[in-house]
Amino acid sequence: MALARHGATANGGVNRQALSAEEIAAWHEVIAWGREATLVPFTDPAGNLFLCAEGADRSAAPVLTGSHLDSQPTGGKFDGVYGVLAGIEALQAIRDAGLTLQRSVEVVAWMNEEGSRFAPGMMGSAAFAGALPLANFLNVRDADGISVRQALAGLHDEFADMPSRPLRRRLAAYVEAHIEQGPILEREGYQVGVVTGIQGKRTFRVSVKGMEAHAGTEPQGERRDALLAAVRMIHALDEAMRECGGDDVKFTVGRLVVTPNAPSVVPSGAVFSIDLRHVDSALLTSLGNRIPSICAAHAGECDVDVVELTTAMSLHFPERMTRLIRDTASALGIPSLDIFSAAGHDARFLHSVCPSGMIFVPCKAGISHNPQESVKPEDLAAGARVLTDVLVALANDSHPGRV
Amino acid sequence: MALARHGATANGGVNRQALSAEEIAAWHEVIAWGREATLVPFTDPAGNLFLCAEGADRSAAPVLTGSHLDSQPTGGKFDGVYGVLAGIEALQAIRDAGLTLQRSVEVVAWMNEEGSRFAPGMMGSAAFAGALPLANFLNVRDADGISVRQALAGLHDEFADMPSRPLRRRLAAYVEAHIEQGPILEREGYQVGVVTGIQGKRTFRVSVKGMEAHAGTEPQGERRDALLAAVRMIHALDEAMRECGGDDVKFTVGRLVVTPNAPSVVPSGAVFSIDLRHVDSALLTSLGNRIPSICAAHAGECDVDVVELTTAMSLHFPERMTRLIRDTASALGIPSLDIFSAAGHDARFLHSVCPSGMIFVPCKAGISHNPQESVKPEDLAAGARVLTDVLVALANDSHPGRV
Repeated sequence: MALARHGATANGGVNRQALSAEEIAAWHEVIAWGREATLVPFTDPAGNLFLCAEGADRSAAPVLTGSHLDSQPTGGKFDGVYGVLAGIEALQAIRDAGLTLQRSVEVVAWMNEEGSRFAPGMMGSAAFAGALPLANFLNVRDADGISVRQALAGLHDEFADMPSRPLRRRLAAYVEAHIEQGPILEREGYQVGVVTGIQGKRTFRVSVKGMEAHAGTEPQGERRDALLAAVRMIHALDEAMRECGGDDVKFTVGRLVVTPNAPSVVPSGAVFSIDLRHVDSALLTSLGNRIPSICAAHAGECDVDVVELTTAMSLHFPERMTRLIRDTASALGIPSLDIFSAAGHDARFLHSVCPSGMIFVPCKAGISHNPQESVKPEDLAAGARVLTDVLVALANDSHPGRV
Repeated sequence: MALARHGATANGGVNRQALSAEEIAAWHEVIAWGREATLVPFTDPAGNLFLCAEGADRSAAPVLTGSHLDSQPTGGKFDGVYGVLAGIEALQAIRDAGLTLQRSVEVVAWMNEEGSRFAPGMMGSAAFAGALPLANFLNVRDADGISVRQALAGLHDEFADMPSRPLRRRLAAYVEAHIEQGPILEREGYQVGVVTGIQGKRTFRVSVKGMEAHAGTEPQGERRDALLAAVRMIHALDEAMRECGGDDVKFTVGRLVVTPNAPSVVPSGAVFSIDLRHVDSALLTSLGNRIPSICAAHAGECDVDVVELTTAMSLHFPERMTRLIRDTASALGIPSLDIFSAAGHDARFLHSVCPSGMIFVPCKAGISHNPQESVKPEDLAAGARVLTDVLVALANDSHPGRV
């Protein structure tokens, strides 16, 4: 896929982080493709990109589809990108077929879904939906000290001629196409997944503060070793989460930064991330609530500070949206499977704004956030065909929210 | 101290890593001070700096004193620098007093003692002493991918006019002045420590390899989480070293680097350092030998590779050198205490080449490798006075190695 050139890595993967030069290059390419399909580009204060196919009724709330263009540092070619390109393909197909749309249909690429350059993720959709004010994110900095504010200014400078529309616009519906990022559809032999909901997730940042000292002279008993304290915390957290959360808990420490990180200096600082997920919202709540006390119990002579960054309980998409997607797939002769999303998506925030739904396609062995991410062309096409007909139905429905 | 300007940090410390622009600036300053004392500068292929006061007998092996100018990233003003400047001060005092030296006396600043930019440390003295060939170090790279070879070329370009002499030159004796980096001299009320030996140390690099995956979708039981495996290893190593090594063991994981280090990606890689020290060489050997099996036992579904980087058993300086330092201090009316060095020093490698010894001065609360490093001016002066008279004695002794 041509877009994978932007941020291509040597091992066939993609490193196209939010608001980076690579993502800006991807914007240029996607806007050019949109223009070929006569889609009109615009942006908003949160750095989201929209490509609009105008409908006959300009006063009606638009239908939105899309996903994101940013990737993890070790990402693949399909996560996010598929939803944006499937949206463009769908609108191109609708135009080629000469179909009329009552409502406008917009394709969106949300800003910073992944949250790997700037934490947390899904900043663009959260700000758009009003779940969190944009101002909350502007001072977040990446590893090089660049703030979201600065990176957004760079993006808007690059696209200074592009119109900007406000956040929190009225929407008729939102549909997001995405790769499954899990093994179920492939294993069960389905080309399309009707996503019934999204697994809950809580994220935390734990900061451990000790004191740097000489590795050869400082007696073990007098040390305030921040890394060793962090190791004890992570070890205890892992055991507690497995014990109480069962097989369905997902506990990940994906990021750990040590200071000064020199072999012969007792570490003075260790900051780590926690990503905790569970389908059962009550269990997710109780497990997450234990984190601060477990960290404090293993801090030893160090200080520890636990901050919760994001809290999202499990959610269920409205039945009218899942039924529309299921029935549309069925009418096209594409067998579909109802599936619960283990991964988070921008659709989480849109769910609070308008009737929302998601379409999954299988990916090879469920592998994602990995250069080996792979999807069959015929599955990509099947998902895009379902999306096309769902968008037509929503755009021509005067009340897409009704049962 | 003026030299602390080069690499000064906001908190009063010093970040002057080996072969950096900051260290090159320090070289220029030290060379200028040496010239004021009529010392002639030269270098060698390992990037060591020498400042020579020529003796009456040019054919006699020279006496060497000095230490290093590089610091830890969170270093203080005295570690290493003191030994170099005390050497220059001593030669200035000898010249001012009109004393004759039979042997030449050289002040040395060894390349990369700390090992924080390029691991392991003490590269310059190891290469000079022939303990390890310089070629072993040339391809070591820093965090930015710059090799020792490249950094050395930059240094030698900067000082292209300076003569270079070979490694492994014949020496009559070596004396290194240094801050104690421990609390004993201050607590016991001595201005000078006669160093009887250096604690043994083994260093390792442990590389854990797993597989990156999506933090929300990858089931806990199917993960190959490299960071979690590293946490289990460090946790088990810490317990084992404490249990078997007693209070005198020093076990430090100072550096840990996670890949890709993103909050919602299960880590595919974790590389950490181990710095293990003990005064008892037999115990150091047996504890170090357990490291690979403990790591393997906790690798889970990950692969682990343990490489020993450096091996140094505890050593004892020759009695003739410790007695000379003790007697010199006594003759000057400066009470001295025999002390074993918990920290490693370049004198370790010189010990295998010529009769070697070390002079310690107390530092505040034993704090080192820390911006709070502090030494009383009168203690710095006392150490330099002992060093001066020791150098005169060695330079005028036809057989400084004799009992």
